[in-house]
Amino acid sequence: MSLIVQKYGGTSVANSERIKNVAARVAKYRKRGDEVVVVVSAMSGVTDSLIKLAKDIMPLPSEREMDMLLATGEQTTIALTAIALQALGVDAVSLTGAQAGIVTDGVHTKAKIQNITPKQVHALLKEGKVVIVAGFQGQTPDGNITTLGRGGSDLTAIALAAALKADLCQIYTDVDGVYTTDPRIVPGAKKLDEISYDEMLELASLGAKVMQSRSVEFAKKFGVVFEVRSSLNENPGTLVKEETHHMESVVIRGVSLDRNQAKITLAAVPDKPGVAARIFRALGDAAINVDMIVQSASHGAGSPATDISFTLDKPDLLKAKKVLDSIKPETGYREAIAEEKIAKVSIVGVGMRSHSGIAAKMFETLAQADINIDMISTSEIKISVIISLEKGEAAVKALHEAFLETNK
Amino acid sequence: MSLIVQKYGGTSVANSERIKNVAARVAKYRKRGDEVVVVVSAMSGVTDSLIKLAKDIMPLPSEREMDMLLATGEQTTIALTAIALQALGVDAVSLTGAQAGIVTDGVHTKAKIQNITPKQVHALLKEGKVVIVAGFQGQTPDGNITTLGRGGSDLTAIALAAALKADLCQIYTDVDGVYTTDPRIVPGAKKLDEISYDEMLELASLGAKVMQSRSVEFAKKFGVVFEVRSSLNENPGTLVKEETHHMESVVIRGVSLDRNQAKITLAAVPDKPGVAARIFRALGDAAINVDMIVQSASHGAGSPATDISFTLDKPDLLKAKKVLDSIKPETGYREAIAEEKIAKVSIVGVGMRSHSGIAAKMFETLAQADINIDMISTSEIKISVIISLEKGEAAVKALHEAFLETNK
Repeated sequence: MSLIVQKYGGTSVANSERIKNVAARVAKYRKRGDEVVVVVSAMSGVTDSLIKLAKDIMPLPSEREMDMLLATGEQTTIALTAIALQALGVDAVSLTGAQAGIVTDGVHTKAKIQNITPKQVHALLKEGKVVIVAGFQGQTPDGNITTLGRGGSDLTAIALAAALKADLCQIYTDVDGVYTTDPRIVPGAKKLDEISYDEMLELASLGAKVMQSRSVEFAKKFGVVFEVRSSLNENPGTLVKEETHHMESVVIRGVSLDRNQAKITLAAVPDKPGVAARIFRALGDAAINVDMIVQSASHGAGSPATDISFTLDKPDLLKAKKVLDSIKPETGYREAIAEEKIAKVSIVGVGMRSHSGIAAKMFETLAQADINIDMISTSEIKISVIISLEKGEAAVKALHEAFLETNK
Repeated sequence: MSLIVQKYGGTSVANSERIKNVAARVAKYRKRGDEVVVVVSAMSGVTDSLIKLAKDIMPLPSEREMDMLLATGEQTTIALTAIALQALGVDAVSLTGAQAGIVTDGVHTKAKIQNITPKQVHALLKEGKVVIVAGFQGQTPDGNITTLGRGGSDLTAIALAAALKADLCQIYTDVDGVYTTDPRIVPGAKKLDEISYDEMLELASLGAKVMQSRSVEFAKKFGVVFEVRSSLNENPGTLVKEETHHMESVVIRGVSLDRNQAKITLAAVPDKPGVAARIFRALGDAAINVDMIVQSASHGAGSPATDISFTLDKPDLLKAKKVLDSIKPETGYREAIAEEKIAKVSIVGVGMRSHSGIAAKMFETLAQADINIDMISTSEIKISVIISLEKGEAAVKALHEAFLETNK
């Protein structure tokens, strides 16, 4: 008998038929004797319609109220999933994030989990019940409903698996696992049987946007082994865990494409100490995640100035521009230029750190495909470039062919 | 400066335009200096679609999970209403029933309010905020979400008004107030400026089903004066309060029609002590409200048996039949016959108790209109009859003409 946490995303619970399918799968595990905790997202499309309802009233609604609103999406799914299990004769009970003991900070729409006290979950499991928990949501210590932001349901599942010391955490999605790249772009992409946390982190946006990096980071930190697999079939998925020995020899594990970033360039930023800090502190205080940052060398004589470019999640663009407007007088930059039509393409592999020439090969490959590189960022296990959005797929194809389809 | 509790029903918040209208009205009160607590229902249609979703999965879903599901309806509205107020520059914050401190018993889908601890509401009002509370819902002492059943949002408003010692409670609906009968049936129906709790209780289903009796009972018990008025115009409504002197001389205040009841007849119930008690205890334990009860005289020789008929809310019919099936062996009745096509027509008036001949006039009026009476029930201030559903409107017209349009 194992304790298993299963997470089903929005497409897996999109309508009553699919919810019944989820229930049938859960029932199978339960009937063979496992204890099961199920984390579900809002039915696909629901969150977007709720957002539309709010924006019909006010373009930039209060984030506290957005959380109050969006939390209803998962609450609907947990009730329906519990009912579907009961229809199969399986004793099941639903809990909101708050009821499941998920306590977060107060950063509405992007809250961070502070701690989980799954007393109620334990008690219900002990009574022999399947417990259905609303993903994506929690509450502050003083009782305000919060949501965890993008990828929040995965995080709920992994954090619950950690808190419950679950034997396994399964992330069900609409793809069979983690691929060397998005199979919709490169038909020859291969499914990986296993992958390390670090590689998964870098590939977070690989394939069908399998998982957000925060969930993988959380799993790595608490050593939660999880499996990414399909809710549409019985195929084994990809196991994500600590790096194992046989991974050492591999060079490139995958090529990823992220079309969800935007770029802001601050032109003519006064080149004096503290200005960059002031800018990124203000963005951080507004809970805006900045990904790549590139600062060019100072140019011109006279008062020295520099250009700073950075990327961020596209939905944060409007908020970021507001923040930047508010600090324009004190930081003294000349202009903030936003660019939405960008793509981030990365190659990822743990083995990369012990091999040279990877970056050169990547840049050559892109040059041969006539793709211009706008920004570059590297880490021990990945190299990312920002290119124009329209070249994104071509870049992935070229890099997959160069690194994963030929003998390197 | 007054503390006002306002309640808006499902049709008043049916879409974003109407929610904006509600916000504009609330803002007007707030801007003249009043403290305002707003109670809202689910947007009209939402509760029904949620029920349909659940029934698609299972015909008789668990009531705990139905509460979890249905509570999302009001939670959606509170967030949108708070956003609409913020769009008008009014500081507003939403609270679920649980957050507003509404504690109920554990009878899911029909919970009763046990107590209200509006600490959070007080604190937020003190900060100058308009507080938007989800109607119809609460939580048990151990944290399960409950709903209050039909008329639950009115009850939330009146109970909050009592707990907050509000100066006024306004129940906004889609009619101008309480009428002598349903204006859609009798165009000559008149709006009443005020009415006593007892009369309102008897007329609970009058007009456009203005209010459920439980809310009026609660208001009477705690002396909450409330006004029933329209959210579509600025007309004053009907004030509901303790009986006042000038009401004494009035005989009949209104004629009501209730099409939402069903009748069950238990044929050949053994006529021995304790059987009726056993039947109605079992129904009561299942939280089924029985309205009228009629027992005919014992008939036949041999083992004495009797027929017992009673009315109940139509949606409870299926559940009631299950309960009756389960106690059939121990109570020994022969058959349970359900009849859905009935109407309850009542005439109501505080003055009635000091006048004679009212019942006779009522029965004569119905006989002249060729309407057969199936069951009769009387109280100090009303006489109700059960007739066939199709004769309901004709009965109301005839009685309104006889008692309210002519000089008696």
